[in-house]
Amino acid sequence: MITIVAKSIVKEGKLEEFKVLTKEMIEESRKEEGCLSYNLYQDVHNDHILTFIEEWKDMEVIDLHNASEHFTRIVPQMKSLREPGSEVNLYQSIS
Amino acid sequence: MITIVAKSIVKEGKLEEFKVLTKEMIEESRKEEGCLSYNLYQDVHNDHILTFIEEWKDMEVIDLHNASEHFTRIVPQMKSLREPGSEVNLYQSIS
Repeated sequence: MITIVAKSIVKEGKLEEFKVLTKEMIEESRKEEGCLSYNLYQDVHNDHILTFIEEWKDMEVIDLHNASEHFTRIVPQMKSLREPGSEVNLYQSIS
Repeated sequence: MITIVAKSIVKEGKLEEFKVLTKEMIEESRKEEGCLSYNLYQDVHNDHILTFIEEWKDMEVIDLHNASEHFTRIVPQMKSLREPGSEVNLYQSIS
């Protein structure tokens, strides 16, 4: 299993627009084969930090996710609403 | 529920020493009241990035965790083995 943590720092004034995009990403991603969970979190101290925590079966299904119609359409729109410093990490559990 | 994502970039040559500390943190934290999960992840592209993803009942149990003997003893040791750029976020689920 692979866990993705994708942290976005959303530009001032763009939070609601960004959230609309995340809603579609969540709905579409959860339908994908091999998506075990796909959830969005908001920082309790800074509401402009929004982070996806996602669990996927393996790297193969992540490659399919990254090539999907919804990913390739929505991610560029999300990027235009983010500050620099946003980050994505792919993890394996070791405990 | 509060989800904590605590990402460490471990100094070159300090990975095994850091992992020994994480082992004790995990064991002790999982015993705490209100700790729903406490897991360690390693970045698949950079083995020096180690991230805890933790689920806690509420802010009150996190305050107790932060004041615990094991936290106040082990975290400073972990900090001495980390690069700048390590980060901790506290999140609420919004999806």
